[in-house]
Amino acid sequence: MDIPENHPRYRSLIIRNALVEGLDEGLVGKAGLIAHGRGEAFDYIFGEVSNQFALDAIKASAASLLLARHPVISVNGNVAALVLKETVQLSKVIPADIEVNLFYWSRNREIKIVRAFERECPECIVHTQGKEKLIQGLASERSRVSKEGILDADVVLVPLEDGDRIEQLKKCNKKAIAVDLNPFSRTARKADITIVDNVVRAFPALIEEIKRLRGSPRTRLKELSNFDNMRNLEKAVESLRELSIK
Amino acid sequence: MDIPENHPRYRSLIIRNALVEGLDEGLVGKAGLIAHGRGEAFDYIFGEVSNQFALDAIKASAASLLLARHPVISVNGNVAALVLKETVQLSKVIPADIEVNLFYWSRNREIKIVRAFERECPECIVHTQGKEKLIQGLASERSRVSKEGILDADVVLVPLEDGDRIEQLKKCNKKAIAVDLNPFSRTARKADITIVDNVVRAFPALIEEIKRLRGSPRTRLKELSNFDNMRNLEKAVESLRELSIK
Repeated sequence: MDIPENHPRYRSLIIRNALVEGLDEGLVGKAGLIAHGRGEAFDYIFGEVSNQFALDAIKASAASLLLARHPVISVNGNVAALVLKETVQLSKVIPADIEVNLFYWSRNREIKIVRAFERECPECIVHTQGKEKLIQGLASERSRVSKEGILDADVVLVPLEDGDRIEQLKKCNKKAIAVDLNPFSRTARKADITIVDNVVRAFPALIEEIKRLRGSPRTRLKELSNFDNMRNLEKAVESLRELSIK
Repeated sequence: MDIPENHPRYRSLIIRNALVEGLDEGLVGKAGLIAHGRGEAFDYIFGEVSNQFALDAIKASAASLLLARHPVISVNGNVAALVLKETVQLSKVIPADIEVNLFYWSRNREIKIVRAFERECPECIVHTQGKEKLIQGLASERSRVSKEGILDADVVLVPLEDGDRIEQLKKCNKKAIAVDLNPFSRTARKADITIVDNVVRAFPALIEEIKRLRGSPRTRLKELSNFDNMRNLEKAVESLRELSIK
């Protein structure tokens, strides 16, 4: 795709391009492109920077991931297309396993995503959806998890996700950390901690925060991990009130 | 794509599906899916209804289109996927020509869109981008227009468009009417009239408004067509200030 460098939305169009390439490579689903567009709009509104409400959520997430017994990063096609390297770095620095979970599941796409991660990091543990269900009786394919991965996890980082999955994780008493640019979404409101930021900025910031906090006393980490998510989302929404067309 | 009917975002997912099908049929470009997602987010924020600021802009647009010497509706893949029938109805009721203009132009996609319109309406005039340029010297493919269509038009309805094109139309002293859910976009701010609404609702409303206003005295239509677009966009943004997470 040929994007003129002087286009005022150049950077945003380049990120779009990563998604389109992800679609061509079979990593990204078609509906994933639309979901990305939704995020783009909120990113635009929030000024395409990591705001204070994002940085606060990132700090709480870093502390929670460091305290976890078994943290897992749940990934989909958009995560693979946008932050493959950063996800691998994150999985090493926490350390955490990676598990592939797809809204529109296909074995073909799952394999392609696993291979993309394994190419980037041959030693990484990459789980796929197994026969086990997070919640028995639920029909959805997406409820399927890996026995060694999400089923056993106590903290799950679920960037770019859908509200249903967060609800399921909550029902199983797992701590859910979401990355979602839409502060009104079910995902954002159901998660324990919601990072309202572009994953492209949030993941590098999370990696740095984890490096900074590593070695802190557990009491300090517990303090930081205790987070009033609704209050923080309200701050994100409040920032919208200052918007003007001029 | 299999969408559970009880999904809280069912209607929105069905519209998404029309875009995905449009992609499969070769009407919609991949980046068009992302652009749609951006609109979805704003639609979500504005409550997925036609607000007063949209209805006011629709009335001014109806009057402007009725007063036009030569009105043209500029269409792309997303317009074809979402409001093909409504565009044809609109072109008959005004009456106006249709012209295909694509951000990521390809002859193949252009032909497919023309054929989709001709199937729906064999008697409709559907122009394509010709050798003429709206503005001489500009490199962009998108500046190419039809001599009998947009080059000669005095009023152009450009739903789901990009700021560059609106700017070009303005430089040629054409009146530009945009449909854009993002009130902050360059498109929204450069257009003479911006309908901040989902095209799926805006087009039927515009058709009804034109039927209502047809036959009104020209002085009345001129009065209605005189529109303070920035003031109206400010109203759209003001409505965002009432948002709350609760």
